[in-house]
Amino acid sequence: MSVVGGSVVPDPVETMAEDVGRLLAQRGHTVVCGGLGGVMEAACRGAKDAGGTTIGVLPGEDRDEANPYVDIAVATGLGHARNALVAMNGDAVIAIDGGGGTLSEIGYANVFDRPAAGLRTQQVGSLDGFEPCNSPEDAVSFIEGAV
Amino acid sequence: MSVVGGSVVPDPVETMAEDVGRLLAQRGHTVVCGGLGGVMEAACRGAKDAGGTTIGVLPGEDRDEANPYVDIAVATGLGHARNALVAMNGDAVIAIDGGGGTLSEIGYANVFDRPAAGLRTQQVGSLDGFEPCNSPEDAVSFIEGAV
Amino acid sequence: MSVVGGSVVPDPVETMAEDVGRLLAQRGHTVVCGGLGGVMEAACRGAKDAGGTTIGVLPGEDRDEANPYVDIAVATGLGHARNALVAMNGDAVIAIDGGGGTLSEIGYANVFDRPAAGLRTQQVGSLDGFEPCNSPEDAVSFIEGAV
Amino acid sequence: MSVVGGSVVPDPVETMAEDVGRLLAQRGHTVVCGGLGGVMEAACRGAKDAGGTTIGVLPGEDRDEANPYVDIAVATGLGHARNALVAMNGDAVIAIDGGGGTLSEIGYANVFDRPAAGLRTQQVGSLDGFEPCNSPEDAVSFIEGAV
Repeated sequence: MSVVGGSVVPDPVETMAEDVGRLLAQRGHTVVCGGLGGVMEAACRGAKDAGGTTIGVLPGEDRDEANPYVDIAVATGLGHARNALVAMNGDAVIAIDGGGGTLSEIGYANVFDRPAAGLRTQQVGSLDGFEPCNSPEDAVSFIEGAV
Repeated sequence: MSVVGGSVVPDPVETMAEDVGRLLAQRGHTVVCGGLGGVMEAACRGAKDAGGTTIGVLPGEDRDEANPYVDIAVATGLGHARNALVAMNGDAVIAIDGGGGTLSEIGYANVFDRPAAGLRTQQVGSLDGFEPCNSPEDAVSFIEGAV
Repeated sequence: MSVVGGSVVPDPVETMAEDVGRLLAQRGHTVVCGGLGGVMEAACRGAKDAGGTTIGVLPGEDRDEANPYVDIAVATGLGHARNALVAMNGDAVIAIDGGGGTLSEIGYANVFDRPAAGLRTQQVGSLDGFEPCNSPEDAVSFIEGAV
Repeated sequence: MSVVGGSVVPDPVETMAEDVGRLLAQRGHTVVCGGLGGVMEAACRGAKDAGGTTIGVLPGEDRDEANPYVDIAVATGLGHARNALVAMNGDAVIAIDGGGGTLSEIGYANVFDRPAAGLRTQQVGSLDGFEPCNSPEDAVSFIEGAV
């Protein structure tokens, strides 16, 4: 499952992302993300805390840019175009906070027919397969039910 | 200026896109788009009608996929990841109707600091630089003022 | 380590690729490849036979295109532009047989400062870091020494 | 027609690239290149000198990186993966000098079934559609005959 969101976020958002990562790992899902900081790092940390596996699809050419909780770092050198790959490589997407980059990934979730759950992302009005959720538990339940 | 939107859209949306293309060309702007049908083709048709120049950044490997109103067809072979390039190659973005792909391009407009005007796109709540507009004239005026 | 080569190759080439994959895994290296058939599949099969880990960076949007010996399938949707990612994600490259796509990956090995060993690839005259080799053992030794 | 080659090259190579660009423009071909310096800039300068049209497909996100002789600058943000796009957007490829990046583009020419002429590139032994040539005139004649 892909987890997307801002690379610099307030503490409560990090906690939320960490919970999402932990829940996903506990339920046997690999966490796919953009490999950098903020929501990405917190989700990976949560997943590793629960013994899960994490994949980071990086914008740059250097695998060493990955946060320390990424198991499999994939360098792309594509810059922001790698957002397409992040959405493509999960069976569903959980979007947490974030700005334009996260919005592009919510759009890509729709393009690739991935259900998407939003946490603290109010940006999207109506989009097939997108569901605003209230908690990490709700978000994980939604995407598990929708896949 | 980039014009983004669905590849299959109802007639009033095509008319709106054609008006946007015509207005942009009349004011001396090159129209950049994804090169295919629907909003993309209508915007190019409008631009050519006003003697403008059009660039189509295609998802596939074949320049012949471009609609007949594209002057400069650029094949990318990147699939949907080319959406990043469409937003990147305009000084601003006008989004007309459309679904997930268009949403990804609105997100990218924000990522690349391009002001974006929306016509009949209700999907985005609050995003820096994004302005829902009521008419082609409003949209063109907004982005000209915001660049 | 990246292993690159043709997707349709004669049996002796497959055997060579399988040996390369097995040797790399025995020495503790993850095998990175393009995820499809021929040299890619044989290298993964060899690596799995020796208990190694394999990553397939696919040209299409569907992780299910990966050959059955890929542990981590990464879909890109980039078509042939994904060749850059295959070279980028290994510390070195072993090229076996192959045509234009393989040649592009040998070029990218140079671009990303990865040493590259060639087996049955006569295409390249002189390129920094590229070494034609005579056997899987030679190729693996060369890249281990050159990294 | 695409012209590829090193971004830093000796003067005689620049002269050769300028001649190639001029000849292509004189015969009515648009010059497609990577948009930066060296061979790319010289080929564009030659083409403009003969009244031709030039397209630069840039690795970065900023169209302003293009050399001053590029008419249509296309930013990609893809880094070296944009080499695929350079080969893809010409009907044939002329490779002049250059290193690994140029080699990747010669490989891509083959992948996309573009005939390719080489000037001072000794790197490639045998590759379908690739022809080492002795002069700008020979190179242009070869690709015109092969398309």
